[in-house]
Amino acid sequence: MTIESTILDMARAARNASRLMARCGTAKKNLVLLKISEKLKENASGIMAENQKDLVRAKEMGLPPAMLDRLTITDATISSMCDGLKQVVQLEDPVGAMEKTWIRPNGLEVSKMRIPLGVIGIIYESRPNVTIDAAALCLKAGNAVILRGGSEALLSNQALAKLVRGALTEAGLPEAAVQVVPIRDRVAVNELLKQEEYIDLIIPRGGESLIRFVVENAKIPVLKHYKGVCHVYVDRGADLAMAEEIAFNAKVQRPGVCNAMETLLVHSDVAETFLPMAAKRLKDAGVEIRGCEKTCKILPDVQNAVEADWYEEYLDLILAVKVVDSMDDAIAHMEQYGSSHTEAIVTKDYRRARRFVREMDASVVLVNASTRFNDGGELGLGAEIGISTSKLHAFGPMGLEELTTTKFVVFGDGQVRN
Amino acid sequence: MTIESTILDMARAARNASRLMARCGTAKKNLVLLKISEKLKENASGIMAENQKDLVRAKEMGLPPAMLDRLTITDATISSMCDGLKQVVQLEDPVGAMEKTWIRPNGLEVSKMRIPLGVIGIIYESRPNVTIDAAALCLKAGNAVILRGGSEALLSNQALAKLVRGALTEAGLPEAAVQVVPIRDRVAVNELLKQEEYIDLIIPRGGESLIRFVVENAKIPVLKHYKGVCHVYVDRGADLAMAEEIAFNAKVQRPGVCNAMETLLVHSDVAETFLPMAAKRLKDAGVEIRGCEKTCKILPDVQNAVEADWYEEYLDLILAVKVVDSMDDAIAHMEQYGSSHTEAIVTKDYRRARRFVREMDASVVLVNASTRFNDGGELGLGAEIGISTSKLHAFGPMGLEELTTTKFVVFGDGQVRN
Repeated sequence: MTIESTILDMARAARNASRLMARCGTAKKNLVLLKISEKLKENASGIMAENQKDLVRAKEMGLPPAMLDRLTITDATISSMCDGLKQVVQLEDPVGAMEKTWIRPNGLEVSKMRIPLGVIGIIYESRPNVTIDAAALCLKAGNAVILRGGSEALLSNQALAKLVRGALTEAGLPEAAVQVVPIRDRVAVNELLKQEEYIDLIIPRGGESLIRFVVENAKIPVLKHYKGVCHVYVDRGADLAMAEEIAFNAKVQRPGVCNAMETLLVHSDVAETFLPMAAKRLKDAGVEIRGCEKTCKILPDVQNAVEADWYEEYLDLILAVKVVDSMDDAIAHMEQYGSSHTEAIVTKDYRRARRFVREMDASVVLVNASTRFNDGGELGLGAEIGISTSKLHAFGPMGLEELTTTKFVVFGDGQVRN
Repeated sequence: MTIESTILDMARAARNASRLMARCGTAKKNLVLLKISEKLKENASGIMAENQKDLVRAKEMGLPPAMLDRLTITDATISSMCDGLKQVVQLEDPVGAMEKTWIRPNGLEVSKMRIPLGVIGIIYESRPNVTIDAAALCLKAGNAVILRGGSEALLSNQALAKLVRGALTEAGLPEAAVQVVPIRDRVAVNELLKQEEYIDLIIPRGGESLIRFVVENAKIPVLKHYKGVCHVYVDRGADLAMAEEIAFNAKVQRPGVCNAMETLLVHSDVAETFLPMAAKRLKDAGVEIRGCEKTCKILPDVQNAVEADWYEEYLDLILAVKVVDSMDDAIAHMEQYGSSHTEAIVTKDYRRARRFVREMDASVVLVNASTRFNDGGELGLGAEIGISTSKLHAFGPMGLEELTTTKFVVFGDGQVRN
């Protein structure tokens, strides 16, 4: 078998399996998820043994400690996968819902019915828990999935997928509904990206270079998540205590994630009062501030920001700060340097809040709340498969519903067209 | 200016214009559409003069009569463009609607707000009326649009776009919201397909080779419409008079369009009664039938279908007919040979109707109605920009709403994340 034919066979098998998954009711899908959870617990030691082989190989190849850490499956990892599965069981099944129904003048009854996307390809980096999390969401939404994790996690991922396939078979469902690409060579990814006929959507999860590679090479729609250069804008007349809490939370609570604030914009009317109080707390938490000229005048011990800072996704305890003379300037800055990910305003002004909500071109726009809420769980979608920063087919955090689409269903009594 | 820099400048200008269009209210957008309609009437002779130059050039280049016909702008074409504009004025503006709102336990109020996609690129073949129809829909949905029509229609399209830009300017809107690519060279299309940073969606309208070319080369999401191999399945126990009407309408009413029936599937229980009556009427209307073995036994003067017939989008008065022994066989046939476009069943059976609706993987699934209803106007969406046969980001006919997406809007009172 060549890589080409292996991938083609997998894609075809996934397409066939997707037809059966699409017809599968909620109860049976939930049963499979619970079976996977049981099997994970029963086979924890076997999985960790396979994971150990991956770890030995990864160490020999000289993977850095942070990556080894992400690759390691512990009892806690398994327990967290089981919790995730139970959460997905609790989520409402979107498939089959008639979203809207209307009657045409000729009596035709037209509805939009939610249906699975079909076959989803997920390309991700080392964390093996994604194998279970992503498979669970795709299955619950009635899809088949092809998983291509990091090559260093192959044995772990295959061990996990084996359990999933066992659960599918026991429930009378096609085991090809969840497949792990058994090839370490990156050529396998290129082949996957060509299967336009059999795969409906590719979701890359990982660094920007992985995502760019997928976008460049895919003939299939891709759900993109580029960087999160998120802003908090503190408006004139804002509640400064609230602004301080929000800015602090957005920067410090978990700086290494995409919805953390990277740049703070402060209206000049409040900068002299707000910046010293906010800066003190941020500095006490170890945050390095890089400021515009005006910021540096107010905070003399702050380093000057350079142009590149405004574009930067630090993912670290570093913050760029800019004083703006108007809300127009704040919006213009976010439009130029932002990444359409998450933008927040702190304001007391009704009209400015409304304007911000209307005009900001970002997947999540917040008034008086931390950017850290751009998250499927926090917004109430349940588990998320990722955050899309491009506008098709979903924009923002993607839960179960975003793993589906709609078709039109038409009920008639013999209508023909004139 | 190189082609590369011309296209890049257009894409950037469109992105900037899209920000202003996104903020534009419904009344002003409608005003622009009505102004365009007025200008079309006032400048009809000027447009036809430019169109005449295109026609002279096209004749010199030896374009076939059918294409010359599609290229020609007459008084009737202009009047139909004006009618189209008025229809789009009547459509409800989807932008700004809060689709759902829910409250989180921490008091955050989360909504999904409908927003424009941003910049849409439309690549189409010779009909110049698409220039106005597509621009109107994109504008009403708050988008900017870059139009690349057939090279043989360039002067006509530029004359039309000039009117649109005049209407935009008079309303105080950016004229870059509607641009026509001023370059005949196909390299311009390649350049357009690379502008991932500035263009959100590409819609190709035309033959399969155009669409394949766009899919192969685009780094931007593409809304695809491949062929329409649509089926009508006449179930056992169906109302055969109704089935005859529907089959006749689906094949004959307008055979050259994508939602016309190409293959008729008939349950073996009713084939001997149904086929002779349906075939007579179809033949009287000039339809050539290509039948499976069983069909040929029932209709002895019918030609044998070959394997390729089941895949064929005839777009003509030709019909493939197959007798099937069960609904399973009918569904399996549609899955194998269909194009996910439109599938219809004629049945009296409640369970089989429900099963067909649930299981058929097509953008429009009909019970007891003609396939010809897969059309934005007929289904009540108003004007349509096309029919998508792939599942992202829309599946089926695309109206105004499908030219938008949603963002999350979150109203808080100082919430931060724990």
